[in-house]
Amino acid sequence: MLLRRANVIDGALKFLDAEGLDGLTMRKLGAALNVQGGALYRHFPNKEALLDAMADKLLEGVADPLPDGHWRDQVHILANRMRKALLAHRDGARVVAGTYAPGSNTIIATDVAINVLCSAGLPPAQAGWLTFALFYYVLGHTMEEQAQAQLPADDDWQSRNARLTTGVSPQYVVALQSLITTDPAQRFAYGLSAFIEGVASQLALAGPGESAAPKPPTGDR
Amino acid sequence: MLLRRANVIDGALKFLDAEGLDGLTMRKLGAALNVQGGALYRHFPNKEALLDAMADKLLEGVADPLPDGHWRDQVHILANRMRKALLAHRDGARVVAGTYAPGSNTIIATDVAINVLCSAGLPPAQAGWLTFALFYYVLGHTMEEQAQAQLPADDDWQSRNARLTTGVSPQYVVALQSLITTDPAQRFAYGLSAFIEGVASQLALAGPGESAAPKPPTGDR
Repeated sequence: MLLRRANVIDGALKFLDAEGLDGLTMRKLGAALNVQGGALYRHFPNKEALLDAMADKLLEGVADPLPDGHWRDQVHILANRMRKALLAHRDGARVVAGTYAPGSNTIIATDVAINVLCSAGLPPAQAGWLTFALFYYVLGHTMEEQAQAQLPADDDWQSRNARLTTGVSPQYVVALQSLITTDPAQRFAYGLSAFIEGVASQLALAGPGESAAPKPPTGDR
Repeated sequence: MLLRRANVIDGALKFLDAEGLDGLTMRKLGAALNVQGGALYRHFPNKEALLDAMADKLLEGVADPLPDGHWRDQVHILANRMRKALLAHRDGARVVAGTYAPGSNTIIATDVAINVLCSAGLPPAQAGWLTFALFYYVLGHTMEEQAQAQLPADDDWQSRNARLTTGVSPQYVVALQSLITTDPAQRFAYGLSAFIEGVASQLALAGPGESAAPKPPTGDR
């Protein structure tokens, strides 16, 4: 069978789910796909190029057309799509965070986010800066979620927190406990709301207008 | 000479500045420190443990006592200290982002940030979530700064942007250009301000009070 580029990427994502990012090598992937090592290199000159392609595949769909609506809702949708995409594969967030040659899906997602913030009223430069800030938040949060899920039972955050009986404030202990016990989706939504309100505050500075006004009631359009 | 744990960490950070994270191996570090490989393993069972210790060393000083003042100023100071600490060594942000066993400096910095947000009026759980969100922003921003500084001249962001003449919006092109030409410190401050206003909005939701009020004029205390 002809080994297509897309087959290699799909196979690499299946390998990722089974073995994790630390287990991924070109040699092991070639063996899993039952091809000679050289076959992979016809499509990807090195592991970094493969990881870039995997990262871009992971983000497929994030930039699908957004429903019409308030920019706050659109940012919510984009961020939640991205979180879901990163969580769909083991170590997905680490794969995306480690790449710096954006593929077409990454570029389109960035473009969509920038245009949502521009439509809200931000100048393009500032829209770009805050789009990156949003991506850092989504990536950081999902990396932490995936890392937490893979810690060994005798050294997970619960165990670490239990060992931290001295030297930290009671607030720290409560905060860490909540990080372990609260649904990650709820924590994610809270930080995302803070981000969106932060954007709204910058809109208000950029020039007061309707776009910075509080979200209209649902069904108001 | 006795090889102390602190000597290994200092040597590893010097090695990092010279060779970068991708070049760091226990074997090469041992050679650079002019010791047998086994000498490093007396202090660190593996490279991951060494990286954890390097990450913690990088964050030394971030949690130094904060001047009295408004929580907004204290968040500013903490975030800027962290950015400066990460930028002080090549690939510093990647080293810290890749570690998940927090050392004492990491724990103290988290504790300090949580307590700043609690003093402002947030419950400990929410203070913890937003502290992590702040760290994701600082880490993501500094990783991007350090990555951008190391891209090859024929494939840096300027070249990539120039190649993107089709398929993206004019806003995207302007945003990417600004990411290249704007002082990173200015971009960082802008996103940090948005974060701080986002925190203020959550404070207002948690219960209106003075702590969520706009920053008082300088010298007002």
